[in-house]
Amino acid sequence: MKLNCILKTILSFLLFFGFSSILNAQQTVDILITNGHILTMDSGLTEYPNGFLAIKDNKIIEIGPHSKTQLFTATKVLDVEGDLVLPGFINTHTHVSMTLFRSLGDDVEDRLHGYIFPLEKEFVSREMVYLGAELGNLEMLKGGVTTYADMYYFEDEVAKAVDQIGMRAVLGQTVIKYPQADAKTAEEGIAYAEKFIKKYKNHPRITPAFAPHGPYTNTTETLQKIAELSLKYDVPVLTHLAESKKEQDVIAQRSNGLSPIAYLESIGVLNKNLVGAHVILANEQDIAILKKYHVGVAHNLSANIKAAKGVAPVVEMLKQGVDVGLGTDGPMSGNTISLMDEFSQVAKVQKQWNKDRSLMPAVEVIKMATMGSANVLNQGDSIGSLEVGKLADIIVIGTKSANMTPIYNPYSAIVYSAYATDVRHSIVDGKLLMEDRKALTIDEDDVIKRAYEFSLKVKQALISQGKPIL
Amino acid sequence: MKLNCILKTILSFLLFFGFSSILNAQQTVDILITNGHILTMDSGLTEYPNGFLAIKDNKIIEIGPHSKTQLFTATKVLDVEGDLVLPGFINTHTHVSMTLFRSLGDDVEDRLHGYIFPLEKEFVSREMVYLGAELGNLEMLKGGVTTYADMYYFEDEVAKAVDQIGMRAVLGQTVIKYPQADAKTAEEGIAYAEKFIKKYKNHPRITPAFAPHGPYTNTTETLQKIAELSLKYDVPVLTHLAESKKEQDVIAQRSNGLSPIAYLESIGVLNKNLVGAHVILANEQDIAILKKYHVGVAHNLSANIKAAKGVAPVVEMLKQGVDVGLGTDGPMSGNTISLMDEFSQVAKVQKQWNKDRSLMPAVEVIKMATMGSANVLNQGDSIGSLEVGKLADIIVIGTKSANMTPIYNPYSAIVYSAYATDVRHSIVDGKLLMEDRKALTIDEDDVIKRAYEFSLKVKQALISQGKPIL
Repeated sequence: MKLNCILKTILSFLLFFGFSSILNAQQTVDILITNGHILTMDSGLTEYPNGFLAIKDNKIIEIGPHSKTQLFTATKVLDVEGDLVLPGFINTHTHVSMTLFRSLGDDVEDRLHGYIFPLEKEFVSREMVYLGAELGNLEMLKGGVTTYADMYYFEDEVAKAVDQIGMRAVLGQTVIKYPQADAKTAEEGIAYAEKFIKKYKNHPRITPAFAPHGPYTNTTETLQKIAELSLKYDVPVLTHLAESKKEQDVIAQRSNGLSPIAYLESIGVLNKNLVGAHVILANEQDIAILKKYHVGVAHNLSANIKAAKGVAPVVEMLKQGVDVGLGTDGPMSGNTISLMDEFSQVAKVQKQWNKDRSLMPAVEVIKMATMGSANVLNQGDSIGSLEVGKLADIIVIGTKSANMTPIYNPYSAIVYSAYATDVRHSIVDGKLLMEDRKALTIDEDDVIKRAYEFSLKVKQALISQGKPIL
Repeated sequence: MKLNCILKTILSFLLFFGFSSILNAQQTVDILITNGHILTMDSGLTEYPNGFLAIKDNKIIEIGPHSKTQLFTATKVLDVEGDLVLPGFINTHTHVSMTLFRSLGDDVEDRLHGYIFPLEKEFVSREMVYLGAELGNLEMLKGGVTTYADMYYFEDEVAKAVDQIGMRAVLGQTVIKYPQADAKTAEEGIAYAEKFIKKYKNHPRITPAFAPHGPYTNTTETLQKIAELSLKYDVPVLTHLAESKKEQDVIAQRSNGLSPIAYLESIGVLNKNLVGAHVILANEQDIAILKKYHVGVAHNLSANIKAAKGVAPVVEMLKQGVDVGLGTDGPMSGNTISLMDEFSQVAKVQKQWNKDRSLMPAVEVIKMATMGSANVLNQGDSIGSLEVGKLADIIVIGTKSANMTPIYNPYSAIVYSAYATDVRHSIVDGKLLMEDRKALTIDEDDVIKRAYEFSLKVKQALISQGKPIL
């Protein structure tokens, strides 16, 4: 062999192994989801019927068809065997700690004064809020919620549970003009909220917020003060809005006949930070105002109809371009707080209410539960869809149960056939929080046992007060 | 020791051991459910918060408080650890084999002509009906249904699946004036039904029935012939009734302006054998007719509102004493066929529709799903409640999941919080068909795999026809 030939041979070998090593140069990521039917919920509704998704740190760094899976290797590979991969669902309105009172007074005419207020007076405490938050976070985690917005008392206790379990949340500290366990006045409530906001402002998963209970349960001055502070701290304001006839009456009296939404405009507190929950009693003018100020709407259909309060005009809101997300309301209203439980009801009731079966198709419901909700919470840039660069909040929904068989249209299957228990894996901020239905960051049996023990105390108190357990 | 004393001692021993053996004389039963929170759903709504239930052969032979458990011993003891024990749910209206088309055309304006009819024309066969029945029976078994009423083609194939899996069912062979896979004319349909009825008349769990599709899709003569034969064979007649505007129009034209219900009265076909599904378009007069002739009503709320067809006046029917049960409708309408999925929607939508949150409380919904449905199918004497002497159709609903925690009012928990997947055990006709969520009489994975393979054929056909999978 001549030198030339030897050199050529060596070069060939080098080139061969060089290319091979380039071909084999797999990028190492933290979690790799393979063999998924990926519904990205991006603006083009991109789907990968057999795709993969790569997560590094807390972000999605690649999504694509199966053929490109080999470019990645990972510490944790989740082969999901054809199951559905989606952005986690975002519950835009709940009162998570009220899980501890669930199934009490459901069908009672005035359950608010008959059950909720007396129960809260007697039982709301730091410990109760924390335990209820553990139970509620567990329930949502197991049901495919990765982010939720909460309004309650001692919201720093909810924050502790969220921090520990690993969920993402917008936590609104209640401000209300009546004395509560954590604040005797609205001023005290604002002070409590400010302290809470300062503490959690830079948390990677927790967005602290103000939660004025409603326009009719706060003074104009309080509402204006909160709006001002929310701009100062750049935090959301969560509130019940346009929910009841009573609220309409109180506000009309206060404002020379304005609707709650028009009243809020008149006092200058509307801006994109505001999230209105319910918004049932909104006319065309109200909807135009919501649109004008980029106010987000949390639609809580099943709680609303259970209370016979009406069906929010969501079809019209969406048509006018208002940001609408889905919420469950609290577990004394909803009663479950896994957002999926709303899906079928939202589609069906809106169809009936608007007398058109083609309205509110399944894909629209899932859009509301993902990007819609993300936009409502002003987090559309970071969550709500599976896109490269976004935060890794991801769920996998199983497709091998009888109720999920067969699947022609995956959106239909999720909306009309799936149970919250069909959620198989859940990832929040790049961390696997549930694998094959096992919660990894919270001791499920222990939480349920402690919640059960708490309920025995409540039952005992009701019995000793001669109050029926309805 | 004197003789007297010896005799006395012997007597004492005899007495002691005699009493002991009486005390120890445990009755041996087949299945013993212990430590259950038993909701009997009997007329007094008797509950045993910690109770037991004994099954021998296919019957309930004892129910009582925990203290009496020791009187029984059993081949199979199910310690249900405080979980809820109820009569199995009874689905009064479905089309079980249509599970194979589920999630197709859900949000399409005219899905009947766009999807259902063409699909049925191409795919309905003996094999398809059997496979769909396997899938649907599996789904219902896993979701707490122990008895259901079906209307479809080749109903003898559904019967084979029911017989094999062990469910209880009322199976209605379709009669319709348009040509179908199993009968070209209504006369052929009647002949098919008669043959089917003769074959299954004495089956312990299957009640064969006639299923005229609807008043508007059959002639007056056909409806009268079926009514006559149903009395001859003493079998139920299942039909769609007062469901749509189109039906109203056709019948009004045929009968000088009568409503579908008034028309059926006028042609003399109303009696207690008739079960009308839907009954959405019923006025006060119609309801009085239903009551007068003891016609049963299958209320399929979620399918009805998904189709924007309206909300059946069930509150009024119940007030007037009409027998009302719950149904799911078929899986191209419903879309799941586990009756529990209806509960929360029935309560909430009826509250909203009637503008009263105290209407249709949870316990009423469960009454409809158990005794109400049993009465609709004329089986109230044998199923629908847990009572000594009744058939052992029993389910156990788990209480240890986050969504079922805590439980103050068990009826509320089942209606507003439970998933079909919370059903833990299921017993039909004294036989354990599901234990700890495992189906014992059907190979779940195999059925799901075969159903999936069938769906690929349907998909392929749709694609080759250029039809979108909506």
